[in-house]
Amino acid sequence: MAPPTAVAIHAITDTAAAALPEPLTVDGVAKRRHAAGKLSGGVAAATSSDLFKGFGYCKQRAKRWDGHLSKESRARQVRYSIRAPLVSMRMLSLGGGLPSSRYFPIEHLQVKVPAVGHFSEEETKESGVVLKAGKYDLSEGKGLYERGDCILSEEYTFATAVETAAPMGVGVVGIKMDDQGLLPEDMDDILTSWDENERGGARKPRLLYTVPSGQNPTGATQGLERRQALYKVAQKHDVYILEDEPYYFLQMEPYTTGGALTASLPQTHGDFLKALVPSLLSMDVDGRVMRLDSFSKVISPGSRVGWITASEQVVERFVRHSEVSVQNPSGLAQLTLYKLLDESWGHEGFLDWLMHIRKEYTQRRDLILNACEKHLPKDIVSWSPPMAGMFLWLKIDWTNHPEASGKDPVAIEGEIFQTCVDRGVLLSPGSWFRAEKFKHHDTLFFRATFAAAEGEQMEEAIRRFGGAVRGVFKIS
Amino acid sequence: MAPPTAVAIHAITDTAAAALPEPLTVDGVAKRRHAAGKLSGGVAAATSSDLFKGFGYCKQRAKRWDGHLSKESRARQVRYSIRAPLVSMRMLSLGGGLPSSRYFPIEHLQVKVPAVGHFSEEETKESGVVLKAGKYDLSEGKGLYERGDCILSEEYTFATAVETAAPMGVGVVGIKMDDQGLLPEDMDDILTSWDENERGGARKPRLLYTVPSGQNPTGATQGLERRQALYKVAQKHDVYILEDEPYYFLQMEPYTTGGALTASLPQTHGDFLKALVPSLLSMDVDGRVMRLDSFSKVISPGSRVGWITASEQVVERFVRHSEVSVQNPSGLAQLTLYKLLDESWGHEGFLDWLMHIRKEYTQRRDLILNACEKHLPKDIVSWSPPMAGMFLWLKIDWTNHPEASGKDPVAIEGEIFQTCVDRGVLLSPGSWFRAEKFKHHDTLFFRATFAAAEGEQMEEAIRRFGGAVRGVFKIS
Repeated sequence: MAPPTAVAIHAITDTAAAALPEPLTVDGVAKRRHAAGKLSGGVAAATSSDLFKGFGYCKQRAKRWDGHLSKESRARQVRYSIRAPLVSMRMLSLGGGLPSSRYFPIEHLQVKVPAVGHFSEEETKESGVVLKAGKYDLSEGKGLYERGDCILSEEYTFATAVETAAPMGVGVVGIKMDDQGLLPEDMDDILTSWDENERGGARKPRLLYTVPSGQNPTGATQGLERRQALYKVAQKHDVYILEDEPYYFLQMEPYTTGGALTASLPQTHGDFLKALVPSLLSMDVDGRVMRLDSFSKVISPGSRVGWITASEQVVERFVRHSEVSVQNPSGLAQLTLYKLLDESWGHEGFLDWLMHIRKEYTQRRDLILNACEKHLPKDIVSWSPPMAGMFLWLKIDWTNHPEASGKDPVAIEGEIFQTCVDRGVLLSPGSWFRAEKFKHHDTLFFRATFAAAEGEQMEEAIRRFGGAVRGVFKIS
Repeated sequence: MAPPTAVAIHAITDTAAAALPEPLTVDGVAKRRHAAGKLSGGVAAATSSDLFKGFGYCKQRAKRWDGHLSKESRARQVRYSIRAPLVSMRMLSLGGGLPSSRYFPIEHLQVKVPAVGHFSEEETKESGVVLKAGKYDLSEGKGLYERGDCILSEEYTFATAVETAAPMGVGVVGIKMDDQGLLPEDMDDILTSWDENERGGARKPRLLYTVPSGQNPTGATQGLERRQALYKVAQKHDVYILEDEPYYFLQMEPYTTGGALTASLPQTHGDFLKALVPSLLSMDVDGRVMRLDSFSKVISPGSRVGWITASEQVVERFVRHSEVSVQNPSGLAQLTLYKLLDESWGHEGFLDWLMHIRKEYTQRRDLILNACEKHLPKDIVSWSPPMAGMFLWLKIDWTNHPEASGKDPVAIEGEIFQTCVDRGVLLSPGSWFRAEKFKHHDTLFFRATFAAAEGEQMEEAIRRFGGAVRGVFKIS
């Protein structure tokens, strides 16, 4: 295709357009901004720069750049599957992955800045303006691998991790799971029987991505023996492990029917630490584990700060990558965390906080499980009490569906999802989290988050979900 | 190589090591933290997690993972060249690229968090702890392309941009420059005469990375006609433009010898905006420009927040990439910017601030130029007054060196750099910024930053630099 010819600047090619918008002026910005209204929504609400744009624009449309995009860029998929349904505000949602703001310990944030026209540091000290943002201001209306390689993960996994790899030509192979997460024997089978020819030339995987505690989406937690077995398989096949542990410190007490939480809560820091399942990192004798930690679930998702622990060699490579991408996390976020965790709370206060949320999460988990016992048809829906994290994984026995013989489970999943939406409740369909998108699954799951909705709403959401399942399966 | 065999957890393989360190306990953290001492350093000072680590560790060393690293990961280079010399605190440094904290308008930041043991939101409102970080607390002691492709940039360019592309197998071709930045005729020549065979099979470049205003490291600013000519060449060869404009709002008044700044400063918002060179984006009629803006140089480098402007298609691809990498900038940083720019200052206050720093930068630029006039040997060192940004690009006529005939300019550059270090002044050698690392250059430059050091130190630094050049060239 011949390149386009040069066109005069600010050319307006279609003068037939009747009413051109007023050009944007400095004075006009405030007016347009005002017309866009207040921001609204809860914690981490979706917003858009469209809210701040003018109402019209008199440039011609850009041409298409398909030929200039790399294979990698063209292959990136829209993540509508997870994000789109979340914008609906009237729904009772157990679909998302963000805890209640109750579990993020920042009541307000304040900065002192110069008043307009008094910009010097001396003036700012005297007459600077203090800006304050409260936790609820918004909701209250105030303001490694080459193309052709494969990596391993749980058969249901954190969608973003898989979607990062896919456009780089890296495939994902899902390992079968039970209620303690991935099965080391299945991992061993996959690797032992790996045949490059059957796998389209892909080499035997050398990397495992796993979320051992409160796995997203299944809520499964690998026990100590499971982790030891997994580590041995990784050694046998020389696989490097990415241990992603955002929910590690959200481990809970065992569930007893009816939720008789009390005496078993750990009372000392030592007891609390002893009650945590040892991480894969703690068993690592080869330097084959990189553990990923995050403040996103226990301090603030908005901090965008986490940390890694790995061997010197691997950390050094990680730093090289970081230097030419994000370089550093936000300094404002780092400063906030430093003041809170180092200067104010210290390790002891942080442990107190983690013990506090352990209790809160245990109570919430018990609450949703009690609601499930009460409102779900147990001959169709089954589950295991999660031991960590914020997800409950509900298994649907689709073979009980009246048209089971002629239908794909994915079709029945869609039917349940739509019925849920009609009844005003959101849970995330299990198929959204499949590591291998195009492999046939004969199982059907929904993921519910118990970290976000308040108690009564959570029970009402489960009641509606039970109603939806009964409706679809035509039982009373 | 056979994989290592499984080893018992916590195995200590070398029991001969005499004094094992005490294991780390919760109580021990504060003690070790105390022993590490206070953080010290100026704005954006280097720090290290080593400061917070224990003094010993009883695990065996990790094995090497070279075989598991991708080609891309192995190819990442250490950025010592720029970073390492900056850690020295006794130097007068004009070498870095970070403005004085005077030009970042945050006097303090404050967050309210729960007191330890009183974690509920109700208690926090009543008895929460307010943590405050002052601006000077610390200093006062309190991929679009595939392997084998090439992109275009200025022949001296922002090192990080080039280093991002290199390990992905993307080469960089430097375009010749004058004091208005890259030469469109040279860009046209390169593209017109492109021969894939001569270039090792690389396709004709389809992307230009350019910094049109106050370019790093040369300080050059493309005038209006230069930008128009550049845009036409991009159209002729169908090249997409990444217009990186971190210094766009740091444009200054013209320099007059002696620095007679005063009457010419713009007095109204309209005058200020009119005084800015139009961006490439403003001339774009094809949607072939993505403009990159940043708060790093005018509000806060620690915010790690910037924005892009481009056509719908390209922005959509950008969003897909972001979703699986950083996802979002820090919410704490976004909140701070929202409170400052939207709720407090508004567009008008922000323009007032930019006009304020235009004056400050013009004064600083004049100050360093006056110092150069006074202290540098003009038969060896020459320069053009920069019109934007924070960099002064000093050209050294190395042919006047007593051993010029037998020496490479890079050797003379090293000699000057070492003499500067010995005399306690840092400027950045021009060769650090070369787009094509291995191409022979017969020019020699040093980059000086005038945005960071205070006035007297800046003059003293230039005096020392002049002394170093005189010493190396053996003139009085």
